[in-house]
Amino acid sequence: MEELGKRALTGDIRAVSRLIRNIEDQVPNTHEAIKHIFPFTGRAHVVGITGAPGAGKSTLTDQLICSIRAQNKTVGVMAVDPSSPFTGGALLGDRIRMLRHADDPGVFVRSLATRGAMGGLSKAVGDGIHVLDVMGKDVIIVETVGVGQQEVDIINHAHTVLVVLVPGMGDEVQAIKAGLMEVADIFIINKADREGARKLYKETLSMMDMGKFPSGWRPPIVMVESNLEPHTFAKSVDELYEKINEHYVFLKEHNLLQERAQLKVQTEINDALRSAILEPVLSRLVESGEFDQMVQKLMKKETDPYTLADEVAAKYLIK
Amino acid sequence: MEELGKRALTGDIRAVSRLIRNIEDQVPNTHEAIKHIFPFTGRAHVVGITGAPGAGKSTLTDQLICSIRAQNKTVGVMAVDPSSPFTGGALLGDRIRMLRHADDPGVFVRSLATRGAMGGLSKAVGDGIHVLDVMGKDVIIVETVGVGQQEVDIINHAHTVLVVLVPGMGDEVQAIKAGLMEVADIFIINKADREGARKLYKETLSMMDMGKFPSGWRPPIVMVESNLEPHTFAKSVDELYEKINEHYVFLKEHNLLQERAQLKVQTEINDALRSAILEPVLSRLVESGEFDQMVQKLMKKETDPYTLADEVAAKYLIK
Repeated sequence: MEELGKRALTGDIRAVSRLIRNIEDQVPNTHEAIKHIFPFTGRAHVVGITGAPGAGKSTLTDQLICSIRAQNKTVGVMAVDPSSPFTGGALLGDRIRMLRHADDPGVFVRSLATRGAMGGLSKAVGDGIHVLDVMGKDVIIVETVGVGQQEVDIINHAHTVLVVLVPGMGDEVQAIKAGLMEVADIFIINKADREGARKLYKETLSMMDMGKFPSGWRPPIVMVESNLEPHTFAKSVDELYEKINEHYVFLKEHNLLQERAQLKVQTEINDALRSAILEPVLSRLVESGEFDQMVQKLMKKETDPYTLADEVAAKYLIK
Repeated sequence: MEELGKRALTGDIRAVSRLIRNIEDQVPNTHEAIKHIFPFTGRAHVVGITGAPGAGKSTLTDQLICSIRAQNKTVGVMAVDPSSPFTGGALLGDRIRMLRHADDPGVFVRSLATRGAMGGLSKAVGDGIHVLDVMGKDVIIVETVGVGQQEVDIINHAHTVLVVLVPGMGDEVQAIKAGLMEVADIFIINKADREGARKLYKETLSMMDMGKFPSGWRPPIVMVESNLEPHTFAKSVDELYEKINEHYVFLKEHNLLQERAQLKVQTEINDALRSAILEPVLSRLVESGEFDQMVQKLMKKETDPYTLADEVAAKYLIK
């Protein structure tokens, strides 16, 4: 496995692909490869794209690849598959639209889905970013459907977070937007040629007026007109990419890159601890048959989950 | 805290409210109250409603309350707030529309948001259901925005899962729908008066033709016309409630209620173990300053997250 890490460092596409597949499938010992490449990570600019389902994130990512390539930079894309817990990601695959970049060696696109429960996805995303990073990609885009806590964990791996909004998606989406307010570095109003785009722009602006921006960076709102002709779309995404670069420069000039990196590292520690502490205990309980016994006891209401968990902790945890 | 559990058992509204707030705020010792009430749980029919943001789940839930009350049953609603990790749930509050039921003692509506990372929401939902259950509610509705793994964990607490679809939400939503296929007991096509409803119906039907239904229950597709006049809406939701009851009867007649209960219990054990094993280790690392030292080491690339986590496991875990 360490060998695979070494080959990934040379940019070997087959090694990288296999490593990411191993991360996704949670193949034992994949950690050994990550241990090997970790010292060489931290060079790429990691950009997160999040927003409600149907907001057009994949189309945006696809066009963003063009803007980045036009500036002679290489791109890695990690598309986090929302359908993962069930379909194993078969459906969205490598996000069909992005396949047009398949022949460009400066672009590497992978979708990521894990069946693992309890935050396994965030760990996989963190590791996947490391792999794309050491293979030498300048910009890494992480695309995810942003709603719950898990998506926030994922977005913690990014330096620059783009939140994609679209007109006409109702109150609930507004609430989510408010929720995403605190993580957004750049707001994108996509499908800005749709009815309600001006209204959404104004709402986002007035929400922003209530916000505090301790870092000094006030998130810009970029209008993107994906429904118009291709040229206009490309132009507005070029402008978006400029803002993304501005944000990166801002982070560097204000010594904030360190702060972001720290958040990233904290998330990684949490993920790694879960896999080193909680998962082995669970495995031991399952293998010894204790887990089944616990389930049966609870079914009969002989005890409760918290009493059981306390007993397990007393048995497996050093006081 | 145990006292609070005792009072909740008598249906004391103030005790129940405080208990749910404690669960939400992760007040220490709330587990003591849950331990006390756990033996009395398992009476209610738990119905989960999930679907993409903007699918109209709150409006449906609100109308479903009327259908349930019309049959003289009592209802508890736990609305899981998607904006939780950031806003603390202030925005959606108790889902404004449902406030019209505030004077009905047979209805108890609470929204639930937790800031806790790593699956804390699923634990809170599980505990919240127990509280509504022992306060004597016949039907408990858990409303959540369904996308990631966390939402699946939440939905595991339900006996009957409703997946809400709406016409015209694009490919990504379709993929999620495919993902939700495996958890759905009933599909709802909401806003069925919209363009594209027939198409969505046919698509859902043909997806279902590819599905396997090992339990013998083939999820019905219920069309709900929320955009039409109130009477039609109410009628279609009454029909939906009939299907919900049919599913419950099916579960009971085929001894499947046990199977669902088992899944529920497994989820609860996982949640409780995380809080009994992983969280104390994290707290000790943070309090001792070790966590900060780990962050610094990683920032300097002196080591990697997995090596660190292995060291922590060696120190805190009994082999």
